[in-house]
Amino acid sequence: MPTITAFAASPDRGQGLARDMPVRWAFEEVGQPYDVRLVSFAEMKEPAHRARQPFGQIPSYEEGGLTIFESGAIVLHIAQTHAGLLPADPNARARAIAWMFCAVSSVEPVVVQRETAIFLERDKPWHAERLAIVEDRIRARMAELSNELGAKDWLDGDFSAADVLMVQVLRRLASSPILAEFPNLAAYVARGQARPAYKRAFAAQLAVFEAQQKKAS
Amino acid sequence: MPTITAFAASPDRGQGLARDMPVRWAFEEVGQPYDVRLVSFAEMKEPAHRARQPFGQIPSYEEGGLTIFESGAIVLHIAQTHAGLLPADPNARARAIAWMFCAVSSVEPVVVQRETAIFLERDKPWHAERLAIVEDRIRARMAELSNELGAKDWLDGDFSAADVLMVQVLRRLASSPILAEFPNLAAYVARGQARPAYKRAFAAQLAVFEAQQKKAS
Repeated sequence: MPTITAFAASPDRGQGLARDMPVRWAFEEVGQPYDVRLVSFAEMKEPAHRARQPFGQIPSYEEGGLTIFESGAIVLHIAQTHAGLLPADPNARARAIAWMFCAVSSVEPVVVQRETAIFLERDKPWHAERLAIVEDRIRARMAELSNELGAKDWLDGDFSAADVLMVQVLRRLASSPILAEFPNLAAYVARGQARPAYKRAFAAQLAVFEAQQKKAS
Repeated sequence: MPTITAFAASPDRGQGLARDMPVRWAFEEVGQPYDVRLVSFAEMKEPAHRARQPFGQIPSYEEGGLTIFESGAIVLHIAQTHAGLLPADPNARARAIAWMFCAVSSVEPVVVQRETAIFLERDKPWHAERLAIVEDRIRARMAELSNELGAKDWLDGDFSAADVLMVQVLRRLASSPILAEFPNLAAYVARGQARPAYKRAFAAQLAVFEAQQKKAS
């Protein structure tokens, strides 16, 4: 059975925004059971964990002799070794993989800038001015993504690993007013969250947070 | 023969930092000839190009009935359909693909923040203060990458598609003092640039810029 790593104490307090969530979701979509090794912030920076994840982050994936990191790569690995998350047609499969790269390298970095600004630059006198610039960049990217999605249910044909990654990226905007400004993107996120596999994955990561809260109290 | 799109007038003036460069490099490594369709800034934002690339950027890749975008995905597609850029062993292949995701989603976004700050926030009174914050974040990420690379020639065993992407990302720091602060990373970039396939790809994109300069003069 594969083992992934996840936060022992997720900074998002069980909102399912940590990057073990798309991996859990992918496992649930394909019906693959998995083990979870919880790591503390201190453990994440130790050599034993850096051997799994060079940047001292989560998640990592271990199975047999294979250890990999990067949530996008782990989801792709799950999708390539199980049926259900990538189309069989080679061209459709290549397009789905392109959307996976798009989610993690063209959409997520723009979205994450908002969190970086809020968490790391909040005390700066220029925080409000810069946050507005960052949010304008996010809106520009969301407008293009919204145009591309149009009235489609999923990014390209049937639900795929690309939708796992993209829905997770867009969920990062749920606490801002931006997602609701693009009704088709908000509906797309809701469709993802309505999937039974999503719900099981979300419940599994929330259970980690709740158990940790109980232990601390 | 596949056709990619590239800038008719690259904003980097032939430095090979535009994202057609890793795609050209991958084609050269596997010995696959390719056509290039040059697009102007105006053409990039038109529906005909957005059908290839939803964000109105370059590159895109077209061959037969397949159209995809995202330089990381295009390089992976080339690597999966030709010998020479991914190991045959399934575990080594999964690790190489993990490093591809790492290059475009964990390293490039941190590096690109510096360019975003320089190009879009230069006129702000807080530019210098924020640039220093951004450069500290880049140094932290580079220190981790440098530790991981150690004395190895390439990221994981033989040269692979992951090195194409990672060398290209690190080249974006060549105009800053940061790359030289990590001698093993600077040497890694130099090893990539010394490859004949890199040189052919670089020359091809430079020729586009030089022809455009000649036409304009």
